[in-house]
Amino acid sequence: MKTGFTHLFIPGPTNIPEDVRQSMNVPMQDMRAPDFGDLTKPLFAGLKRVFKTKTGRVFMYPSSGTGAWEAAITNTLNPGDKVLMSRFGQFSHLWVDMAERLGLDVHVIECEWGTGVPLEEYAKVLEADKAHKIKAVFATQNETATGVSSDIAGVRRVLDAAGHPAMLFVDGVSSIGSIDFRMDEWGVDLAVAGSQKGFMLPAGLSMLGVSQRALEDSKTATMKRCYFDFVDMMKVNDDGYFPYTPPTQLFHGLKTSLARIEREGLENVFARHYRLAEGVRRAVSAWGLRLCAAEPKWHSDTVSAIVVPESIDAREVISAGYRNYNISFGTGLSKVMGKVFRIGHLGDLNEGMCLTALSLAEMSLRDAGYEVELGSGVAAAQGWYRESHEAAQLRQAAE
Amino acid sequence: MKTGFTHLFIPGPTNIPEDVRQSMNVPMQDMRAPDFGDLTKPLFAGLKRVFKTKTGRVFMYPSSGTGAWEAAITNTLNPGDKVLMSRFGQFSHLWVDMAERLGLDVHVIECEWGTGVPLEEYAKVLEADKAHKIKAVFATQNETATGVSSDIAGVRRVLDAAGHPAMLFVDGVSSIGSIDFRMDEWGVDLAVAGSQKGFMLPAGLSMLGVSQRALEDSKTATMKRCYFDFVDMMKVNDDGYFPYTPPTQLFHGLKTSLARIEREGLENVFARHYRLAEGVRRAVSAWGLRLCAAEPKWHSDTVSAIVVPESIDAREVISAGYRNYNISFGTGLSKVMGKVFRIGHLGDLNEGMCLTALSLAEMSLRDAGYEVELGSGVAAAQGWYRESHEAAQLRQAAE
Amino acid sequence: MKTGFTHLFIPGPTNIPEDVRQSMNVPMQDMRAPDFGDLTKPLFAGLKRVFKTKTGRVFMYPSSGTGAWEAAITNTLNPGDKVLMSRFGQFSHLWVDMAERLGLDVHVIECEWGTGVPLEEYAKVLEADKAHKIKAVFATQNETATGVSSDIAGVRRVLDAAGHPAMLFVDGVSSIGSIDFRMDEWGVDLAVAGSQKGFMLPAGLSMLGVSQRALEDSKTATMKRCYFDFVDMMKVNDDGYFPYTPPTQLFHGLKTSLARIEREGLENVFARHYRLAEGVRRAVSAWGLRLCAAEPKWHSDTVSAIVVPESIDAREVISAGYRNYNISFGTGLSKVMGKVFRIGHLGDLNEGMCLTALSLAEMSLRDAGYEVELGSGVAAAQGWYRESHEAAQLRQAAE
Amino acid sequence: MKTGFTHLFIPGPTNIPEDVRQSMNVPMQDMRAPDFGDLTKPLFAGLKRVFKTKTGRVFMYPSSGTGAWEAAITNTLNPGDKVLMSRFGQFSHLWVDMAERLGLDVHVIECEWGTGVPLEEYAKVLEADKAHKIKAVFATQNETATGVSSDIAGVRRVLDAAGHPAMLFVDGVSSIGSIDFRMDEWGVDLAVAGSQKGFMLPAGLSMLGVSQRALEDSKTATMKRCYFDFVDMMKVNDDGYFPYTPPTQLFHGLKTSLARIEREGLENVFARHYRLAEGVRRAVSAWGLRLCAAEPKWHSDTVSAIVVPESIDAREVISAGYRNYNISFGTGLSKVMGKVFRIGHLGDLNEGMCLTALSLAEMSLRDAGYEVELGSGVAAAQGWYRESHEAAQLRQAAE
Repeated sequence: MKTGFTHLFIPGPTNIPEDVRQSMNVPMQDMRAPDFGDLTKPLFAGLKRVFKTKTGRVFMYPSSGTGAWEAAITNTLNPGDKVLMSRFGQFSHLWVDMAERLGLDVHVIECEWGTGVPLEEYAKVLEADKAHKIKAVFATQNETATGVSSDIAGVRRVLDAAGHPAMLFVDGVSSIGSIDFRMDEWGVDLAVAGSQKGFMLPAGLSMLGVSQRALEDSKTATMKRCYFDFVDMMKVNDDGYFPYTPPTQLFHGLKTSLARIEREGLENVFARHYRLAEGVRRAVSAWGLRLCAAEPKWHSDTVSAIVVPESIDAREVISAGYRNYNISFGTGLSKVMGKVFRIGHLGDLNEGMCLTALSLAEMSLRDAGYEVELGSGVAAAQGWYRESHEAAQLRQAAE
Repeated sequence: MKTGFTHLFIPGPTNIPEDVRQSMNVPMQDMRAPDFGDLTKPLFAGLKRVFKTKTGRVFMYPSSGTGAWEAAITNTLNPGDKVLMSRFGQFSHLWVDMAERLGLDVHVIECEWGTGVPLEEYAKVLEADKAHKIKAVFATQNETATGVSSDIAGVRRVLDAAGHPAMLFVDGVSSIGSIDFRMDEWGVDLAVAGSQKGFMLPAGLSMLGVSQRALEDSKTATMKRCYFDFVDMMKVNDDGYFPYTPPTQLFHGLKTSLARIEREGLENVFARHYRLAEGVRRAVSAWGLRLCAAEPKWHSDTVSAIVVPESIDAREVISAGYRNYNISFGTGLSKVMGKVFRIGHLGDLNEGMCLTALSLAEMSLRDAGYEVELGSGVAAAQGWYRESHEAAQLRQAAE
Repeated sequence: MKTGFTHLFIPGPTNIPEDVRQSMNVPMQDMRAPDFGDLTKPLFAGLKRVFKTKTGRVFMYPSSGTGAWEAAITNTLNPGDKVLMSRFGQFSHLWVDMAERLGLDVHVIECEWGTGVPLEEYAKVLEADKAHKIKAVFATQNETATGVSSDIAGVRRVLDAAGHPAMLFVDGVSSIGSIDFRMDEWGVDLAVAGSQKGFMLPAGLSMLGVSQRALEDSKTATMKRCYFDFVDMMKVNDDGYFPYTPPTQLFHGLKTSLARIEREGLENVFARHYRLAEGVRRAVSAWGLRLCAAEPKWHSDTVSAIVVPESIDAREVISAGYRNYNISFGTGLSKVMGKVFRIGHLGDLNEGMCLTALSLAEMSLRDAGYEVELGSGVAAAQGWYRESHEAAQLRQAAE
Repeated sequence: MKTGFTHLFIPGPTNIPEDVRQSMNVPMQDMRAPDFGDLTKPLFAGLKRVFKTKTGRVFMYPSSGTGAWEAAITNTLNPGDKVLMSRFGQFSHLWVDMAERLGLDVHVIECEWGTGVPLEEYAKVLEADKAHKIKAVFATQNETATGVSSDIAGVRRVLDAAGHPAMLFVDGVSSIGSIDFRMDEWGVDLAVAGSQKGFMLPAGLSMLGVSQRALEDSKTATMKRCYFDFVDMMKVNDDGYFPYTPPTQLFHGLKTSLARIEREGLENVFARHYRLAEGVRRAVSAWGLRLCAAEPKWHSDTVSAIVVPESIDAREVISAGYRNYNISFGTGLSKVMGKVFRIGHLGDLNEGMCLTALSLAEMSLRDAGYEVELGSGVAAAQGWYRESHEAAQLRQAAE
């Protein structure tokens, strides 16, 4: 029989803070009550602050993040529209796949898994597109499968440099609320997020940031849509209502999680994610292993995909962890299956939790046949956490 | 300051039983864990028992019921397909609206609000359609806006009588799990349900029953779809997995609510709904008022829409209830706004709860200006509940 | 199988408000943490406001209210001390019994059940006690078994009129936080309360208000005690700590329930209890029945004990309610067993909840053989609630 | 702002398993309902299995464990009775103190803190007591303050060897349910336990195992008591009731925690405690530190008190852990204040949780000025957990 906490280190769903859990344990309520907007209207406002948009708006859909991917496409594009995308991991792959199935003409740039959005390739394609046939450029800010973060500000620079009017679509499911994201400053038109990552909630609610430009384009976009249609949302959202029954319990949770984020301070949240992630990375080095992310610039602060030696199967590491030590690591998906295991380090986390993951990863690695030195990664992370601690305290106090 | 329970008598979301609430208060977990199917596979099996299908299958989507409406259409039909629908309330209206927006050629039969699916009209249209241009016939089993239940077995008879091969789509959002529904026996091809009604859960999970015929048709259906695509679900559902992160907390709740339904016995659940609803109807008569449902055959056992005298505005009744007595009644939607207020009586309910609703309805009616005799409806319901009590006990004991 | 809410109308434990329940669902914590006092110190302050004492202090014991009865006695009295008590119900009886078992010399005045503290008898005894042999006078402010409230200010007047220095002990378990109680103004020395009544918490925490006089007397009191000893509490309470592991989850609940009481306003809480109770009393009259409380001056606003006709057994009423309608009424205890059933109407309650109790009481009475007119009591209560509603709103707004 | 779990490693309250937490989140209920015993009677039976008594009985008090200490004494002894006790830590000290305050004539054997019940000394005293003046012998099975377990079977042997009829009182608050305890086999007459340790519940419920001999003695025992009196309990316990309002929410939790213990198997629970504790002890050795427990035979499997070097203050370690890393260690109490910090390792725990404690202890030690090698204790524990893992699996499978 398993005892004790199940240690959860997948890159989402993430650990739910106690106060968020408490706040979701509510009886049902009337989503047409006159005061329902008292609950929901501040959520829209709070999400805008997290998305860093003043001019755009944010929709909330009862769906997984995948639903918001679809909402972004079907509301703003037309069948056959040409779009620019890149594939370097399972989630960027799935968005490409969706775009194709929904009838877009997708120009896909294939990249090595472990790299991110190829700015130079994007620049070339956009500059070559003098006729502006490309209606939208897509970028996965954080590829959860490989632990790779991409440079969204860079995509904007490339677009601007080419004087290209394409809309910018960003998958921020595993980044928004955890890693710096600036919707307005970076000129993002469609920004996708999900409840079960940095927002520290269960799955079931997706958020979609939409710029004024995209809202304008949606008026003439001819893709078929209904469940995800902006129009139905806009008719009632401003009064705090929804076109169909929304998951009110998640709204209560979101209220609490937004309050947590604001109390900690968004920049402090980002700094904490970096600091905790860096400990994991130092452990990986100490183990003599490397990340799937090919270069430091691609390092994700929300998830690390760790490449195991060829002699062992990463699934054995994960399986040993789950079976022997009651810990869930993220598995390698698709191309990197068996080659990597992933440690999610996003959401509500602290040093002790990361050290739990590292100490159990060491044991699991050994169980799977890799003779890592026990305690070596833990020690590297401990050292980093101690040396970076004071600066973190000062930073937070300064807020 | 409001004190005491908020009395919830909208027709969904419904009151959540304590054990269901408990079971949803869980930490997050890995939706790719090797034993995840231990949680999810019995849910599919349990839903099939509630839908009464052995040959079909049931999908679960992270969405409201509206999402499953869309899933039903986009997976099995082609752009421009002709379909037969009827409109007699806000929810049948919205499904018509969706069908049109998604590009179907909809033959809508307009009916008086307060009636249900017009079998004779359907028969005429289907018999006239010798070329079988009509690909699907839609029926709203329970029109939540008017408290009208329709005869789905009748729709099947009409189709069979006409020898018509059209698929049968049923909106069972506010009926499945509360009112008799027989997917296989009635030859239903697409059956839509939602978590927040008879399943006694929060909103956020829709269920879609799909016949083998519909699965077959989906292979060639050309409507664009991705989030709701059967194919992605089928690839992984049989092992208990999902193509994107599912709302695991709702799965835990569903496990408990299915267990409750089985413990009570599905036929007992239906009998209870009838018995409790009948008490509400007797109260309405005692008040000298009438239901929106035009005839007894249309009476819904999950919701009663009560027509107020012309001299008063039903919104005043609802508002008085909410403001003065902390009770949520359902409002009149669209055409019947101001003319009806609704009492939802579905899900986890008992005599005492219905009497609460009735006693507060009496007070609210008076507050809104209708001089109902206080206690009159309560007495009528009490009498019925007492006289029908023994039979109900015997029935349950016999199971 | 029982469905729907279990309607709880015993006079404690009472219904727990949702936010209180949420706040108790916490992980455990270190009761010696440096910031533990941030949680507990405001509780002591809040309790003092509810007890209306500025000069005294309040102890919290992990125990039922019975424990605080014992704490009051053993800390301040000496073996063989003479005390004055009165018996007019099961709870006043039990306190007499405890006093005797703990070795006090108890002068008990036997009163009819249905009456309360006999002020004239007390006056006589106290005036006759010129030597001031009586060390303490006991009064049960609210006798939960018979639904009788007594006049504590009157006991003080009697003591003062006699110039008698005895301490005043008050059992306020089912009154403090629901009915007016003024520790300082009435010169109460020991005031006993419990978590599961007006404080809307589970059982497990008792509160004991202690005057400076009583604290002083405790220094020389020679009764043996340890678990309940003031001294151990006083050593650490001021810093927010406890001499043994306290029930921290109840502290979190108490924090929320005190916040609720303050938000509503203590005087509004009392007014609401009166108003809701009066509805129950009017229903009882409409039924042609009478209360156990012999005169209006004894009417309790927290519980009504209703005398059934001699032809029926009150236990049948309670049993029918529990078995048939999922409602818990309070039973008749000891002398009044079979003669009364009780409706608790204290804590977090509203009109709808009281009407639930009344409508199910009517059905239960009929099931037990009393031909009450269905709806009659409900109508009487509805009428009262409507006519008193506006004044209640105004009162609350004025706060 | 603190983020992530608060790591709780005090020796009680302990971490509450999720299912136990769920099960306590209940509405209130009638503690006099006819079916209340369905909840409570199995609890008494389950506790007897945990206490390993078939002939005795177990009482449950709404109190902390301290209350059950008092219940044990006041129900079975007489004022002035001579008893034999030993003092070797804060909790054995407090029981001595209580016995003295309650009027017993206590023969205290003072032992070095870090040792346990002095069997040889006990033997001498008992053998010398030819007149059998000593009525009871007290033993603290697990001294929580110093992490010392004592040999209760040994105390029984000593009593038997001396042919001495004294009753045997055992404080098992931090041992019963976690460390082997055999009430019948060891002839224990009074055995004290508490909810917030091995039973994995919040504080607020104490359990007292009582032998037939002690029940017999209680009939003539003359100490004053009421709240804790066996008599009131025995009148109603057998039907599942209590003499005053019990904490029903804790009963629901206890039901679940007993089910957990039975599912794991009591012997497996003990083996797990040993295994997890041994990892902590190996870490302590790797750090170059020593336990307060002077010899291996005194090692407690539920808590380790770790002696810090004289150059540092253990309070600094604890404070650094709490302030910097959100972990609660147990403090040093009384004589060992500043000299030890404690790691509680009892209740619902696993390897990962212990490694969390150890890794944060290493960081906290360094923060407090002790240059422990980071990762050294973690590695020692990891090694042990891996090498002992297979045997643990086999053992459990064999059950």
